This record gives sequence, structure tokens and C-alpha cells, in this order.
Amino acid sequence: SSSLIFFFFIVLEQCMKFNVTKPNAAPVNVSLYYESLCPGCRQFLVFQLVPTFIMLQDIMGIDLVPYGNAQEKEDQGKYIFTCQHGEDECLGNMIETCLLSMLGINAFPVILCMESGVDVLKAAQPCLGVYFPDTKWDSVMNCVKGDEGNKLMHQNAVKTNALKPPHEYVPWITVNGEHTDALQDKAMDSLFNLVCSLYKGDKPPACGQGLKKKTNSYCMN
Amino acid sequence: SSSLIFFFFIVLEQCMKFNVTKPNAAPVNVSLYYESLCPGCRQFLVFQLVPTFIMLQDIMGIDLVPYGNAQEKEDQGKYIFTCQHGEDECLGNMIETCLLSMLGINAFPVILCMESGVDVLKAAQPCLGVYFPDTKWDSVMNCVKGDEGNKLMHQNAVKTNALKPPHEYVPWITVNGEHTDALQDKAMDSLFNLVCSLYKGDKPPACGQGLKKKTNSYCMN
Repeated sequence: SSSLIFFFFIVLEQCMKFNVTKPNAAPVNVSLYYESLCPGCRQFLVFQLVPTFIMLQDIMGIDLVPYGNAQEKEDQGKYIFTCQHGEDECLGNMIETCLLSMLGINAFPVILCMESGVDVLKAAQPCLGVYFPDTKWDSVMNCVKGDEGNKLMHQNAVKTNALKPPHEYVPWITVNGEHTDALQDKAMDSLFNLVCSLYKGDKPPACGQGLKKKTNSYCMN
Repeated sequence: SSSLIFFFFIVLEQCMKFNVTKPNAAPVNVSLYYESLCPGCRQFLVFQLVPTFIMLQDIMGIDLVPYGNAQEKEDQGKYIFTCQHGEDECLGNMIETCLLSMLGINAFPVILCMESGVDVLKAAQPCLGVYFPDTKWDSVMNCVKGDEGNKLMHQNAVKTNALKPPHEYVPWITVNGEHTDALQDKAMDSLFNLVCSLYKGDKPPACGQGLKKKTNSYCMN
């Protein structure tokens, strides 16, 4: 997914060409197992994960799995979910899951906007409008309330429950599929530096060494 | 201004205590002279300046001056502005100027939201709502359309025209009040590393060395 162009770029692309560094090694994949209303999750997502990805998207992949400490039980072929921070959190998880399914990587700015807002749920619709003015909120809610969302959230449950070692808290971070205390601590302290240091290819300009950006875009006087 | 708590923190603060590194040297001050609709300005603001500030706010100050290559003339005690990208840009500059005046540092997430959106102007009101649900849009527009905004924009003009050397393009960056080609290039390539390297005190955890964060916030299983 790191080869996809982050949505911000699509917005700006019409006006300029940004010279993305050509990656010459596998991206560093960071997975975040989280809950939409968990304060530590919001903090990591807003202050580390998304800003790091904005700057290092050429060498980094992200997988967001909103579920965390939720639980599920099956009832007549559908799943019923219980969330650590109540029904609002289940709704927040489901909205973000549906956004990720509908928009892929381009859901990130919408999720950043939600998670950094005062009220995660109230922010969802205006945040979608800022980045996807042509996507109807109803189409998100159809997913959220329908079988599609139910199925997607079950996949999050399966994915979360398959973690080895199992998660003990959230935010729970894996780097290239691996979780250790050391990786978790480094990611929480400075994901930016962790990703730069783990990337085996030529470092992009953002890592402060190696390749230079070819051109910058200016508006002349 | 680096001693102020970035708004995102206020949102999250109610639920947790984040251990901000205690700075022991002067912050690195980055000023951005820009225009609201200039693609290169949006790129720098969205991909470098704000993400860097999110991660390095303990050791960094930001001054945003939306004016750039605009021009002003005085007419009967008021100023009339002409902007490089037309009237929409003048309006965008004015909205951001008023937000900065009303909200200070807490305007940054709103401006990030606007500048990263599909339509800077259309995004303004929903972006304000996400971060300041209790601030009326009318209060922003009163500033934008009134004497207050006119006076503030004139201050931006004075500040921009006082630059030494004078700006030749936007985004035009000064670091601790100084502009050189080398500083501009480093800032455009990797503001994050530039700020870490220029900061004379103990490096914060985000810089990838030195102090460790005291605690991280987790939601236990």
C-alpha cells in the first residue's frame, strides 16, 4: 500500500508535480490495533502514526485495525460487538472500518481529522466532507449499519485475536508483523526515527540524509 | 509560543497526562510566509510544517504569515488587497489570519484541515466545527469582513514587506528570523531533521535520541 499516493497528494497533484523518492527496498509496515475512543490510541495515531506517514509514506505502509479490546459473539449468523468504551466506541470503530474499506489509504486524513477532533463521532461527517465532498455520508452509514460493516468488523476481530503474542493493551503496534516490548517502546517514543532506521533502502530526504528531493514547488513573486 | 499546549493535547488531556519533555533551550522558531492557495505552500504546510510541529512542539515555535505575494493599497484609511491566486486566495488568507488572531496556536489544526482539504475555502467552516464546535462561524466572518481583519492583514503585509532579504517566492521560510538558501532547502527537504539538529537543548524523544518519554498511555485489556 505504500506505493499508493496518499490522498493529500491527489488534492495537490493537479497543481504541481511532487518528486516522490523511488523506494528501493521493502516498505516498513506498521500495524496499529486500536480503539476509536481510547485516549492513548488517539494520541499515537494523531501525534505519531499519521504525521510520520505523511512524511515517510514512500518507505512505509500502515494497517489500521480498529477493534482492540472489543469482544464479539455470534448470533444467528451476525456478530454482536461489545466495546471497551461503550457503544459510541463500537460506532467509531465501525465508521473507521467502513471508511478504510471504501477509501483504502485515502481514509487516513479522514480518520486523523476524526481522532484529533473534540468529538470523534460528531467529526466523522464533516471530516469526510472536507476530503471527499462527493462521497455521500449515507453510503458510509449503509456500510456501518449493514451486513458489510458487520462482516468487516468480524475480520478485525479475527485479525486482532490472531495476534502472536496476543495483545495486552491498546494501542498495540506491530512492525513488519512483529510485536516486541522494544519495538512498541521505540514506536511510541519516536515512530519516525524507528521507520527511518528500519528502512533498508536509500533513505528519503525526510530521514535527513541520503537522497535529495529533486525539485520543490514555489510560487514566484 | 512553544510553551503553549497544542490544541490536540487539550482535546486529549481530559483523559490522560502526556509527559511533555521539559525544554532546556530556546525553541527553534520557524516562520512561514505563504499564500492560502499556493500549491507549494499547501504542500509544505501539510507535509512538513504541521506534522513536524505535532511531533516537535516542545522545542519549536511556528509563526504563520498568510500574505505572500499579495499587494495592498490604502484607500480612505482601509486597505485593499490583491492576491496572486485571485479573490478566493485573499479570502483564504483572511480566514486563516482571523483564525490565528482568535485562536493563536490552536488555529493550526483548523488550518491544516483547510489546507489539506479538496477546497480550502469550503473546508473552513467544517474544519472549525471539528476542533471548535462552540466557536461560531459568524464570529470568524465578522473578523474577515470587518476592520479587524483589514488591520490584521495589513500587519501581515508590513511583516512580509519587512523581510530581509525580501522574499522572492512562497513558501518563504525563516528559521529563528533568518533566511538563507541553505536553510530554505533544508527546511523544504526535511524540516523535522533541521529542527532537531538546530535545537541546542536535550533532544526530545521524537528526535530519536536523548530523553525518553516518562510514560505512555495505554488502554489495558
